[in-house]
Amino acid sequence: MLISKRSKYVFSPIRENEALAEKLVRSGKKIIKMNIGDPAVYFPTPEYIINAYIEALKSRKTSYSTSQGVFELREAISSRYKHMYGIDASPDDIIVTQGVSEALLFINSMLLNEGDRALLFKPYYSIYMPMVGLFGGKPLFANYDEENGWNVDIEELKKVIKRSKTKKPKYMLVTNPNNPTGKVLDRKVLSEIVDIANEHDILLISDEIYDELVYNGASFTSIGQLAKGMPYILLNGASKDFDATGFRLGYILIPEQDKKSEMLKKKLIEYAQTRLSVNTPAQYAFAEGLNNAKMHDASLKEMVKEIESRANFIAKLVNESKFMHTEKPDGAFYIFPRINMKMLKLKDDREFVNKLLEEELVQVTRGSGFGSPNHIRIVVLPPKDILELSVNKINAFCERYKKEA
Amino acid sequence: MLISKRSKYVFSPIRENEALAEKLVRSGKKIIKMNIGDPAVYFPTPEYIINAYIEALKSRKTSYSTSQGVFELREAISSRYKHMYGIDASPDDIIVTQGVSEALLFINSMLLNEGDRALLFKPYYSIYMPMVGLFGGKPLFANYDEENGWNVDIEELKKVIKRSKTKKPKYMLVTNPNNPTGKVLDRKVLSEIVDIANEHDILLISDEIYDELVYNGASFTSIGQLAKGMPYILLNGASKDFDATGFRLGYILIPEQDKKSEMLKKKLIEYAQTRLSVNTPAQYAFAEGLNNAKMHDASLKEMVKEIESRANFIAKLVNESKFMHTEKPDGAFYIFPRINMKMLKLKDDREFVNKLLEEELVQVTRGSGFGSPNHIRIVVLPPKDILELSVNKINAFCERYKKEA
Repeated sequence: MLISKRSKYVFSPIRENEALAEKLVRSGKKIIKMNIGDPAVYFPTPEYIINAYIEALKSRKTSYSTSQGVFELREAISSRYKHMYGIDASPDDIIVTQGVSEALLFINSMLLNEGDRALLFKPYYSIYMPMVGLFGGKPLFANYDEENGWNVDIEELKKVIKRSKTKKPKYMLVTNPNNPTGKVLDRKVLSEIVDIANEHDILLISDEIYDELVYNGASFTSIGQLAKGMPYILLNGASKDFDATGFRLGYILIPEQDKKSEMLKKKLIEYAQTRLSVNTPAQYAFAEGLNNAKMHDASLKEMVKEIESRANFIAKLVNESKFMHTEKPDGAFYIFPRINMKMLKLKDDREFVNKLLEEELVQVTRGSGFGSPNHIRIVVLPPKDILELSVNKINAFCERYKKEA
Repeated sequence: MLISKRSKYVFSPIRENEALAEKLVRSGKKIIKMNIGDPAVYFPTPEYIINAYIEALKSRKTSYSTSQGVFELREAISSRYKHMYGIDASPDDIIVTQGVSEALLFINSMLLNEGDRALLFKPYYSIYMPMVGLFGGKPLFANYDEENGWNVDIEELKKVIKRSKTKKPKYMLVTNPNNPTGKVLDRKVLSEIVDIANEHDILLISDEIYDELVYNGASFTSIGQLAKGMPYILLNGASKDFDATGFRLGYILIPEQDKKSEMLKKKLIEYAQTRLSVNTPAQYAFAEGLNNAKMHDASLKEMVKEIESRANFIAKLVNESKFMHTEKPDGAFYIFPRINMKMLKLKDDREFVNKLLEEELVQVTRGSGFGSPNHIRIVVLPPKDILELSVNKINAFCERYKKEA
């Protein structure tokens, strides 16, 4: 066999129909792309960050950086956590990565032996799965509960862990604000998750890449504000809050100084050394993005206001359809409507999204790619006329495939 | 155990004493860094590439690109191979990666099952080893022969493969021009390697990241000029030829269209999708770097001339020392002198480089990190006064540790 066994885990539902989309585009069709969560397509990356990037290029900050990341950037990240969340993390506690995806790659490779469990919540961000599978891990699932506004079902989480007793998960990975549901978890639920992780000595990882993209009155709590005195990992980056997806900058934050935390940091730096460094000028740009709080707040505020408005607009339209129902999101930039598949002459959500792309030229992602079939994930970033058009197209599509009464 | 078993393979000899170096720098010491092969530290990245990068930023090419890489860049790479080597590779045959290190990560993960063999040549580029180990691979070693000017010992290669009969290596990885030895393999030797790979049906991978950094009268042949009609993989990138290490841009080229090659390309694109995309504006800058042949030739010529002069300068000085001997390089920007350890009161090359750093503030890499103990790798990029100073310091260091007669 040419291809390794582990490679079967490697796939991305979000991009799985890119080849088909490209074919359609090449044949002259125009597609409404609602599969990729990329704010920089709709909101230009802020000028003050671009200027800092240009400055770094002009002063030829174009050699390798240290593997752990440019010191100035790690200082800026450290300040951010102190100011925003009161979390003490020094530049030594931070490893800059090529997006959160590289952070996940390192972390899974570092933690998982063949057969080890990794606790994920369904629906999960789809990239979590290949990262676990590649390193021989077996996902163990708890749930975000749709009936309860996509909140974590704490009682069920306790049961899942209890059942896994002989094979306790190596880590528990929370995504907050959530992708694909747009749910922001409240402080009480997060507190309970922290307590459970602590009680069972399970490493808690929190992917908080959308932490500033919160609206509809929700308020965000970082795991780091609650998980004092126990090892935990925060993941974040430039892509979403700073509207700079194409920079490919993420980071890992391990604020605590206990023996386990120190071991993790040391090993992660060694992982980082195997790829030499991250794009250097982009790191200086991101440092300026973080340091210039005034400019950041201004552009963020504008973007979040717009996202809130678009999210609420499409959520309302979706809920007027008899074929779908969605919770209203309060963070990130997705909705995750349930599709009433029973009404439709379609086998499953995969057939739904593929036919929708081919016939209506609307590209969304199937819910089964996030572990929750009978849903679709829609990116709410396009302008309202496009959002409206897409919902109309989805409705027309569903009408066409409606079962006879 | 918190850390996975595979993580023991994760280390980088080139950067293993960075923490010590940083400590020395913080205490006010000035270090001569000769451990990292980074031309951009000594030769500013060409202005026409920087300008294209700035242009891409100004026109906000800052969203995710396609996972496979920006089409314009893949077109530029395709043209390069057509013009330079007569190799027909379409943009579909190219996957852009975050440096060659990410290419190696994908390839090893894609090819190796637990216990599979990977054929490397000693001395190997040190990062090859963790990439094999992480995915359960076992390296199988052939040799570059120091007695024969670091050429490949073809007879020995045949024997190594014959001996591996029941467990044939999954791939064979050649580095040409070589890191750490600076050797450029000649066409005849490469032809024999291609024949052996073909005869035994072993996937041939050629890391050609230094392909334009050739001097002292040597001439470079790409594996792609010889390996017609069989699957093979070329690795290259922006870092060395284009003096743009901090961009973190590499690429994988699989020009053939046979069933195996097609399978590899398809799977690699799926791997690429798990990390969404590579830095977008840098890809446009690299495309301009490739397309503007006139500007590239001018800056390359100047840089290669300087590298040749520096390499020959330090090689001569090293060979005047009774403690060391080096072959003269004809590619890349390293020398790999053998240290006469028997003359010294030092345990091994690791102790040599650590003490040299601490006591003489000269940072080089131990040969054992490339699989060849009793050597050190010296980066020849610094200006001549620094090269001379470093050799003087190494000689003084050796004198101090000389065994009594």
